[in-house]
Amino acid sequence: MTAADHPALGEAISSRLAELAALSDEPGRLTRLYLSPAHRRAIDLVSYWMRDAGMSVRLDPLASVVGRYEAQDGGTQTLLLGSHIDSVRNAGRFDGPLGVVTAIEVVKAAFKSGKRYPFAIEVVAFGDEEGVRFATTLGGSRALAGTFDERALDEVDESTISRREALTAFGCDPSRVAAERRPPDSILGYIEVHIEQGPVLEKEGLPLGVVTTIDGVTRATIDVEGVAGHAGTVPMAMRHDALAAAAEMLLAIEERARRQPNLVATVGKLDVPRSAPNTIPGRVRFTLDIRSPADAERIRAVDDIKAAIAAIAARRGVMQRLTPGHQAPAAHCDEKLSDLLAAAAASCGAAPRRMPSGAGHDAMAFDKIIPFAMLFVRCRGGVSHNPDEYASPGDIDIAARVLSAFLDRIATP
Amino acid sequence: MTAADHPALGEAISSRLAELAALSDEPGRLTRLYLSPAHRRAIDLVSYWMRDAGMSVRLDPLASVVGRYEAQDGGTQTLLLGSHIDSVRNAGRFDGPLGVVTAIEVVKAAFKSGKRYPFAIEVVAFGDEEGVRFATTLGGSRALAGTFDERALDEVDESTISRREALTAFGCDPSRVAAERRPPDSILGYIEVHIEQGPVLEKEGLPLGVVTTIDGVTRATIDVEGVAGHAGTVPMAMRHDALAAAAEMLLAIEERARRQPNLVATVGKLDVPRSAPNTIPGRVRFTLDIRSPADAERIRAVDDIKAAIAAIAARRGVMQRLTPGHQAPAAHCDEKLSDLLAAAAASCGAAPRRMPSGAGHDAMAFDKIIPFAMLFVRCRGGVSHNPDEYASPGDIDIAARVLSAFLDRIATP
Repeated sequence: MTAADHPALGEAISSRLAELAALSDEPGRLTRLYLSPAHRRAIDLVSYWMRDAGMSVRLDPLASVVGRYEAQDGGTQTLLLGSHIDSVRNAGRFDGPLGVVTAIEVVKAAFKSGKRYPFAIEVVAFGDEEGVRFATTLGGSRALAGTFDERALDEVDESTISRREALTAFGCDPSRVAAERRPPDSILGYIEVHIEQGPVLEKEGLPLGVVTTIDGVTRATIDVEGVAGHAGTVPMAMRHDALAAAAEMLLAIEERARRQPNLVATVGKLDVPRSAPNTIPGRVRFTLDIRSPADAERIRAVDDIKAAIAAIAARRGVMQRLTPGHQAPAAHCDEKLSDLLAAAAASCGAAPRRMPSGAGHDAMAFDKIIPFAMLFVRCRGGVSHNPDEYASPGDIDIAARVLSAFLDRIATP
Repeated sequence: MTAADHPALGEAISSRLAELAALSDEPGRLTRLYLSPAHRRAIDLVSYWMRDAGMSVRLDPLASVVGRYEAQDGGTQTLLLGSHIDSVRNAGRFDGPLGVVTAIEVVKAAFKSGKRYPFAIEVVAFGDEEGVRFATTLGGSRALAGTFDERALDEVDESTISRREALTAFGCDPSRVAAERRPPDSILGYIEVHIEQGPVLEKEGLPLGVVTTIDGVTRATIDVEGVAGHAGTVPMAMRHDALAAAAEMLLAIEERARRQPNLVATVGKLDVPRSAPNTIPGRVRFTLDIRSPADAERIRAVDDIKAAIAAIAARRGVMQRLTPGHQAPAAHCDEKLSDLLAAAAASCGAAPRRMPSGAGHDAMAFDKIIPFAMLFVRCRGGVSHNPDEYASPGDIDIAARVLSAFLDRIATP
């Protein structure tokens, strides 16, 4: 494969992403939930493309599509490529499908030129990365890693349909999940191409990034209870305003996060129940989401923020309670695979930025079990989970050529 | 009337407040809206009490109950006493009725002892002070002041019943509102007894306050628009977080208000539309309520706060828009009447605190037209608009004796 003035591969991938984007559960916008009719049609289309690229195709017990491109004679190991084809509600077309379609197109180019690698390639299109329908997520990738918790089969969606029922109705056999576990020595690794979903590459004028770490995360909910009162009759010095206290906590959280490179902290939701313009807020609840590639730094930040919240509450005479939520350690990309990806990028004239991923990805499920690496593609404005999500055919073309070059490099170490 | 070890008058008033509190539009809690069935029953009960206290009673065109206790021979002027008998939803029993029932009991004591004053007394029980049913409020007191805007008759409630229709169905003739205007030289003044609805008297250990001014108010809504983003992927330094900006604005508002004695500023409502724990807030809307007895100080504070909000928005790269809402200047109590009230209080051993009222009252409608004064009664915890609202029989007793002493003083200047 050679670089072209015209990004033909990027155009082809973009065109297929547009085709996939038309498969939605909602008219007028892209919503493709796990095991939905649109997911079924996406599986059909992806399967068709995989076969067209010389792959054999099967649907696994958790409805991941697995397309297999056989190794040249004697190859016993498998390299996994992939991403997911489910989406959030009112989604963009790149988050997930970019990695699946790019992998298929790269395999297809090899197939068309009669090229085989000393390892098989399996392109996997996972179906439950976004976690919109059921509470837990990454079931498809966890099954490959052998860490799928079968209790998740009993989780129900908002129509009280369980994951097990939905899988069975979809034609899958969830009792066979355990058999999907891949013996780690049979797997060379997992490579995922994904849009950055952030603004860093665009700001730095770079088309590609190579991920170092997928951030660990701490989530929590904070309840603040002060004293409600009449907005006209309680002097400022006698107030215990829960919202003013929460505002001060929010700025303390922001200030703490700003002091730590690569750490981010977000208060995404804040509710003032039974509020009125002429009432001093007596209660506030807000969420906290802290992420960092360094677990120790994240835990230290969480501790500092807890202390700051407690101090603010004590000074203002309000009560506070922090309820821990989801916690996950950082997942580290494989250095060797990442170096190979970076070298492949450099060979394509696109030396990448090394950067953490603040967003979660299927690759996280492979942490400490299957080595993985991720290639980030610049996206416009850092926008994701939104119809305005966009990556250019030119950038996608570079990513596809880098993935192809990577295959060549890992084939001939 | 003499002070008793046992606060007989306070107990009698408290007992009547309990009777009134049983008249509600909702089972299990006190809600008495303008022109509702509960309002009708309250009018009947108050009318009965007024007649029992030697007054003639009529319902005016806006459904205010007016009980008249005639002057001694030759008296041509009238002193107005009163407050309101409508309530908020899930109200306390003191806000409003305390002023009506105290006035009736004081007149009744005079009547029982055969006492007349050189002026007539009219006890007025207004019906639309809280403004729960219709948008504008203080219709009853504005009618007396001659400032009732007849466009308010076309306002509709949430069932699209107009004020005009509701009044007619209630047996009132709204076309006769203009005739209710009192020629100012016929009115000595208006005196209202009311619970403080704030914590100042309790904190200072005083049963009574004499109001200097009813605060002027500025309300506004502030919209903040930043850039929504993924909580994991946007570095802190690249964020334009609308909620973090709003938090900083909120603390700037609080800080500015704290610098000015007697001025209060409240952010009562704050909404983050389409929020999620893992999304950087892109939009926030919050309310602002600023009150002060000094209009110039309030306007200066509003200007400072506008400038602070604009500066914070500019520094954070977010947009802000302030939409002005309700504005009202401060209403000043009459000095002579207030001094007489204070002297009467001192003569009863309860030298009062002079204090502004942060809450609005019927008396506001008389500003610059009919001289008025207000006597505040300590309430437990400063709580109001809540079933926990409470003023003790002892404090109410003192208030009643002060009102009685005030009548003696104004009768013999």
